[in-house]
Amino acid sequence: MSMDRLMENIMKKQNPTVAGLDPKLSFVPPYIKEACFARHGKTLEGAAAALLDFNKGLIDSLWDVVPAVKPQAAYYEMYGWAGMKALAETIAYAKSKGLFVITDGKRNDIGATMEAYAAAHLGETDVEGETFEAFGADALTVNGYLGSDCIDPLLAVCAARDKGIFVLAKTSNPSAGEFQDQMLHAMYEPLYRAIGNMCQHWGQKLKGKYGYSGVGAVVGATYPAQLKELRKALPDTFFLVPGYGAQGGGAKDVAQGFDKHGCGAVVNSSRAILCAWQKEGCDPQDFAGAARREALRMRDEIMAELGGISLPA
Amino acid sequence: MSMDRLMENIMKKQNPTVAGLDPKLSFVPPYIKEACFARHGKTLEGAAAALLDFNKGLIDSLWDVVPAVKPQAAYYEMYGWAGMKALAETIAYAKSKGLFVITDGKRNDIGATMEAYAAAHLGETDVEGETFEAFGADALTVNGYLGSDCIDPLLAVCAARDKGIFVLAKTSNPSAGEFQDQMLHAMYEPLYRAIGNMCQHWGQKLKGKYGYSGVGAVVGATYPAQLKELRKALPDTFFLVPGYGAQGGGAKDVAQGFDKHGCGAVVNSSRAILCAWQKEGCDPQDFAGAARREALRMRDEIMAELGGISLPA
Repeated sequence: MSMDRLMENIMKKQNPTVAGLDPKLSFVPPYIKEACFARHGKTLEGAAAALLDFNKGLIDSLWDVVPAVKPQAAYYEMYGWAGMKALAETIAYAKSKGLFVITDGKRNDIGATMEAYAAAHLGETDVEGETFEAFGADALTVNGYLGSDCIDPLLAVCAARDKGIFVLAKTSNPSAGEFQDQMLHAMYEPLYRAIGNMCQHWGQKLKGKYGYSGVGAVVGATYPAQLKELRKALPDTFFLVPGYGAQGGGAKDVAQGFDKHGCGAVVNSSRAILCAWQKEGCDPQDFAGAARREALRMRDEIMAELGGISLPA
Repeated sequence: MSMDRLMENIMKKQNPTVAGLDPKLSFVPPYIKEACFARHGKTLEGAAAALLDFNKGLIDSLWDVVPAVKPQAAYYEMYGWAGMKALAETIAYAKSKGLFVITDGKRNDIGATMEAYAAAHLGETDVEGETFEAFGADALTVNGYLGSDCIDPLLAVCAARDKGIFVLAKTSNPSAGEFQDQMLHAMYEPLYRAIGNMCQHWGQKLKGKYGYSGVGAVVGATYPAQLKELRKALPDTFFLVPGYGAQGGGAKDVAQGFDKHGCGAVVNSSRAILCAWQKEGCDPQDFAGAARREALRMRDEIMAELGGISLPA
């Protein structure tokens, strides 16, 4: 299902990375902010307009390099409804350029409520017979703490509309292990592994033509041993790998997440791409060029480890 | 900290319940929808306007009965930015009536990103020196799967701005036990208990004057044995109790979540209140009156178990 489209994008571009669109206002070049504040004032609307213009510039510069983008919902939500409008418009713009869009929302709730999140981010919202895509991503990150009830409504939408989910297994942050590494008494395995195993199970009815299902897992680059373990244990589960770059994961670390075809994972980078113009110290007008250079550098660094990418038969 | 204000509201009104504002469009009386569709068309904006009018009618009818309301973010998010605007306006309207507002978002992410969620829902968003409340709730539900990194940014905002959080411990849904009931090998206790224990720990710097901290826990009415266990084990942790009514929890079940003063918990009801006009079969124009009658019935049913509510010294 959904991961097929992501994998085809990855294969075509020979680039298993995703650009994280986590735009803090401080990452946006001053000339963009000034123009937006002139139109909307120093308001949430003004800030949201600046994020959208920044994102569009980045997407224009990255669309032929990266297969996917991953907007992080929190950085839009903090600007209120105006930020959420910028999120929806960013997603629509990225899709218009052929990019696969993963909304990083880590949503979770009980079944009836999860249907609403599934509709919001992957499905359609019905308004008494008229239907609308509220956010319209291709995939959504979700938190599996509530168990199968929470996942089932997503599976239904994924099957009907060729979408995907990524369930948090082993996250990239320093305290990830507090709960995720706890060994479960009855299963003789840690919690992250139990959730990973459920990803395999949940995905069985969503198997795509390349062997990977529509239920992926989030596994951090900062824990390469677990990445290797889960790659071996979960052959049908596609990985979204955060934690490369600023958080400390390197190319050799992320390589643990891939199969022998160079498939099975996509690696996220956010700050390094968004802030490349600041790090380079280039003309702020060239922010998108700097982002492209960093995206190419990252691609080359990871591809040097993988060799090449082919689609499994 | 924050739970003090909630507890004072509960004591004044002698009512430990919270009205869940989870407005499906099908819960909204036709005359409200028709008026909103006439103004905005059958669009996401039209639907969002109907939710807001419905909510305002409910709040006008409930503000002197219930101490708090709990809007469920998913039911707004599914209407896109227009829905999120209705969420912000619902929160502002509820606060203007003196209600304590718990946004049920179950947000979670790594530290740097969690700061953005904390700003969005409990704090302020800075736009280069101008500050705005994006959503401005009094408390937020969060998912603790990522560990302390995920919680720390919230604690900082709670301390600075007298806000609170409720961390998912034992949720009310049927599959809650798949992961939450797993016994942890090293701790000789189930996962939900380990997260509950961390709520005690996280809350130690946010203790309020009645002994409860700003870090609460979500514990479902559908699991009364665990509710009783956690009430005894977590004396500083205030509980948000979902699952009463439609999901199967009764008044005797929820009573397990309270201390000897009748304090320490607040019980949510959503559908029973929102759909009371449909269940009663009353004039749809009286939807808010029906909600009030159900809220009073629920209050009386639970208070009959508790006897009374006094603030611990």
